[in-house]
Amino acid sequence: MVTVYGMADSGNCYKVKLALEQLGAAYHWVEVDSTKGGTRTAAFLARNPNGKVPTLQLEDGSHLPESNAILFYLAEGTPLLPEDRAGRARALQWMFFEQYSHEPYIAVARFILRYLPAGTPRRAELPRLQERGHQALAVMEQHLAREPWFAGKNYSVADIALYAYTHCAADGGFDLGRTPAVGAWLSRVKAQPRHVALG
Amino acid sequence: MVTVYGMADSGNCYKVKLALEQLGAAYHWVEVDSTKGGTRTAAFLARNPNGKVPTLQLEDGSHLPESNAILFYLAEGTPLLPEDRAGRARALQWMFFEQYSHEPYIAVARFILRYLPAGTPRRAELPRLQERGHQALAVMEQHLAREPWFAGKNYSVADIALYAYTHCAADGGFDLGRTPAVGAWLSRVKAQPRHVALG
Repeated sequence: MVTVYGMADSGNCYKVKLALEQLGAAYHWVEVDSTKGGTRTAAFLARNPNGKVPTLQLEDGSHLPESNAILFYLAEGTPLLPEDRAGRARALQWMFFEQYSHEPYIAVARFILRYLPAGTPRRAELPRLQERGHQALAVMEQHLAREPWFAGKNYSVADIALYAYTHCAADGGFDLGRTPAVGAWLSRVKAQPRHVALG
Repeated sequence: MVTVYGMADSGNCYKVKLALEQLGAAYHWVEVDSTKGGTRTAAFLARNPNGKVPTLQLEDGSHLPESNAILFYLAEGTPLLPEDRAGRARALQWMFFEQYSHEPYIAVARFILRYLPAGTPRRAELPRLQERGHQALAVMEQHLAREPWFAGKNYSVADIALYAYTHCAADGGFDLGRTPAVGAWLSRVKAQPRHVALG
């Protein structure tokens, strides 16, 4: 059985939980609080030298970090990953988009507003984070105005990766009212079998 | 034949060129200068709504953005991608590491020093970028002290992805003298058949 080292309120960790639940896979969950130094201990750094959750411990004892690499690994050979080469490339396109153009703005704005004290100087970052995050949401809106899912004809790990921080984007001050196709897609994701909530 | 929309001096675009050359694949290259607005035109945004190079036009006319998704697509079924599920996951682990924990520091520091005027206020970002970039290099060093390549027993797209901005990290003020195993790996990558230089 695999073990997830994760933090329940982290969207990146939630991706892994949602995929495991939807695949009906058995797993252990070990809660690691990155806000209290849990990812900087020697024991944790031996699991992932980059000091981040989630990290998946495989059945052979080795560790796999990076939420979207974990999603791809779990989904290979299942309906959560397109069967064709072009479809897999599309899934990866959106998963790299998520980590480069979406998460660093939408998740970081949420982190500042949800985890840091109201007086933190990091609030000065919010206007730029919100501008860039709304740009990412606009790119998603343009795609979702034409297609129901991000990769191929079915719900996939690309949707899981983008759902994780999009569905709670309001926590970071984002206005999802500007992107109705994104809102409709969030409802479709939430209606998938075995869906579980963040947390 | 595929067409690469890319900028020759961009490490992200160089990844695609290096993979295509090493695979012996025929391709067109269309130079797009993102520093002069080439990625913000209506024509370019129709190819990639996220407005970034590289973007690969496939033979069916569709477009695939995201450098590491392109690498994975090109490498499927070739010696540049591990054949086993765990190996593919390792390749993706390092490719997501590259886009989240490496490129936003090492490539951005290079951009500020190479493309912006000496008086740019963005030079204030350099200490943080260099701190985080050196952390990424330290994570690479730890891996390369034990293993010759990033994913599996052979050179792969994970090495291409990380080579692109590591080999020119000095442009961003990074000191590769601190990481001798990274230096030895750079030499191994450069010695691979059909290697081509950035630019």
